[in-house]
Amino acid sequence: MNRLDRQLEFVQEADRLKGVLRHTRLTAPPRRENSAEHSWHLALMAVALAEHAPPGTDIGKVITMVLLHDLVEIDAGDLSVHAPAEEQAHQHAAELAAADRIFALLPADQATRLRAIWDEFEERRSVEARFARALDRLQPILLDVRAGGPAWRAQGVHADEVLSKVELVEDGSAALGAFARGLVEQAVADGILAP
Amino acid sequence: MNRLDRQLEFVQEADRLKGVLRHTRLTAPPRRENSAEHSWHLALMAVALAEHAPPGTDIGKVITMVLLHDLVEIDAGDLSVHAPAEEQAHQHAAELAAADRIFALLPADQATRLRAIWDEFEERRSVEARFARALDRLQPILLDVRAGGPAWRAQGVHADEVLSKVELVEDGSAALGAFARGLVEQAVADGILAP
Repeated sequence: MNRLDRQLEFVQEADRLKGVLRHTRLTAPPRRENSAEHSWHLALMAVALAEHAPPGTDIGKVITMVLLHDLVEIDAGDLSVHAPAEEQAHQHAAELAAADRIFALLPADQATRLRAIWDEFEERRSVEARFARALDRLQPILLDVRAGGPAWRAQGVHADEVLSKVELVEDGSAALGAFARGLVEQAVADGILAP
Repeated sequence: MNRLDRQLEFVQEADRLKGVLRHTRLTAPPRRENSAEHSWHLALMAVALAEHAPPGTDIGKVITMVLLHDLVEIDAGDLSVHAPAEEQAHQHAAELAAADRIFALLPADQATRLRAIWDEFEERRSVEARFARALDRLQPILLDVRAGGPAWRAQGVHADEVLSKVELVEDGSAALGAFARGLVEQAVADGILAP
């Protein structure tokens, strides 16, 4: 296959991410969010919230990261961030195998380059990766609060577990972290998140 | 409101794009595509197919364009590219009004900057806008061919109408345009698109 054929095979395979459902619930339409539209939302957040990243952050790289970050769920599915540690470890192994398969659909040079960006995100080893992760943790909190907390209730999640995710927002952006912490405290005060 | 509050209001409003349904049908899951996941798919295509843009194209700008391009459908809805000219003109006016409202949610400097990128896309007045438009025209052709042509049949679309969209792909990328033309000719040969 020539380069274009391989690239289009990757594009066609990526289409399947539209069928991977997350635990986050949308309010309008009232249904579960899928990982493709979630990835779009994160990329748009990177555009709109860029000034809250640490100085020198390459926002273009952040956007590429969030566009790619969930592709592995085509094989591995979505796991709640509140799942037990054992399930998280199993998920991590499944995602590594998925990354091996999916990025290899591309021409070798591109596969190497995009896989390195995905690895960087997973390992949170740059300001770009930490800002991307902050967006990935903030977005479901925004949606859960607006929906009145259904995903939290369905999973029996308490405030301390959500606040442990807020630490990842703070790690990527001080301003977004402070905002997220206030949002969670308000959710407890409003009775939509268990203390 | 401070800057962050305005940016997050924009982010929350953008969430509604997940509820705007397009005419394109997905194969797995078998349902209509929404405009948010479509926008993600275009952005991922920009990453994967960047080398087929004319030399000097700013791919970061192309990605921002496709992330933003359909936000106006929150107010205006999606109209088929095969709709009559009168409906297209009405849609264009509705989209301009929507852009006025939606970008104004952001702080003024950002609203001006992102609105200018949206205008540039709409008016196809740069290599970035023409490449972004090429992706926007190629993507539904890819999905329609794979699904066996249901969206074409549902709208009674013939090959000449699809080929008029292929011209917009050719205008943005010679390589992608040639590919799209071959795909449409094959679809006619396979009997999934009326000649």
